[in-house]
Amino acid sequence: MRLRNIKNAVELLEKNKLNYIKNPIDYKGDRSKLFNNDNPIHLEIGMGKGQFLTTLAKLNPNINYIGVDMYPSILLRASQKLELEQLSNIKLFYYDASKFDEVFEKEISRIYLNFSDPWPKNAHEKRRLTSNTFLPIYNNILKKDCEIHFKTDNIKLFEFSLENLANNQLILSNISLDLHKSDIVGNVMTEYEEKFSPKGPIYRLEAKFRK
Amino acid sequence: MRLRNIKNAVELLEKNKLNYIKNPIDYKGDRSKLFNNDNPIHLEIGMGKGQFLTTLAKLNPNINYIGVDMYPSILLRASQKLELEQLSNIKLFYYDASKFDEVFEKEISRIYLNFSDPWPKNAHEKRRLTSNTFLPIYNNILKKDCEIHFKTDNIKLFEFSLENLANNQLILSNISLDLHKSDIVGNVMTEYEEKFSPKGPIYRLEAKFRK
Repeated sequence: MRLRNIKNAVELLEKNKLNYIKNPIDYKGDRSKLFNNDNPIHLEIGMGKGQFLTTLAKLNPNINYIGVDMYPSILLRASQKLELEQLSNIKLFYYDASKFDEVFEKEISRIYLNFSDPWPKNAHEKRRLTSNTFLPIYNNILKKDCEIHFKTDNIKLFEFSLENLANNQLILSNISLDLHKSDIVGNVMTEYEEKFSPKGPIYRLEAKFRK
Repeated sequence: MRLRNIKNAVELLEKNKLNYIKNPIDYKGDRSKLFNNDNPIHLEIGMGKGQFLTTLAKLNPNINYIGVDMYPSILLRASQKLELEQLSNIKLFYYDASKFDEVFEKEISRIYLNFSDPWPKNAHEKRRLTSNTFLPIYNNILKKDCEIHFKTDNIKLFEFSLENLANNQLILSNISLDLHKSDIVGNVMTEYEEKFSPKGPIYRLEAKFRK
């Protein structure tokens, strides 16, 4: 997702003291300082405008959510929505996912990847969020037996992801090749998904590391 | 695929001495007796009326093909077509795939599974040709680094197969979630595929064992 660049996005983000984390490294290994509890933490990488995570945060007050994105202008939109809702179990920051070891210990109970950038050129394979650039990072920050939940409408990205996750020996489950026609219940839609799912199938899978 | 049962199918099959193998066990470990050469052997499990394998046998005279089915009445149709064509690099027999160790050594260079029975009920999972009933058999009869090529139009069977192959740590490649719109070239269609592919996507993958 690309939004118009907002010049003073970081400055505006910093005004949201309830949800925005200025220095995520400061909380590494002690998230309870951040959330004032020890509830499990679910992370969305590439949170976009935040509808998905906001809906989940309201449905599950006993789960802590962290939404990240590389683009402050996008986070700002999510942040403004959260400020209105006064939701305290969701925090945001911007950071490059390929460096997540810098901000997370092995403390995450689930990772959501929703409609990630497909980076269609072969030369950009390493930038895809299901590529080998990121899998070792996810393995470092996910707790044992915890899952990645991934969905996309991009057929090529899903084909690539199936192969790459399987060939890195992750355990796959609940694969759906047409989520909106499947018997999987409780799907929470993203803004993008609401707009594009009538145009073709949404692909989805769950994956976890063997060790 | 189900065809009308032909009462004397086996008797009629035995008349085709060029293509029909009456006692496949007799040739176990010495296929050169069967084909009079040492060319690689590709096997189709559930060959139906035989269009797929017949087309391949004509395209690739240096590959030996074996087509099997559990139903003599189905094999008879394929056999009659082959007799007309006088193709010698293709042999047929009927046998239960769950007992293929009885007729094959580690001698097969490729296995084709095309539009296999989806056995949709959970209770019948073990009958699916990509289930754990059959994977150890395939591992026993496939030569090292040789592949299973699988395609189906059944979304549930494909979802199941992706999970089961990945979770048994097979290496997956060339996954296509819409074969007829993909850039995969050289697809040879089965009779069923010609009829049903306009109604929805054909799913396809290649899989091989790690050891």
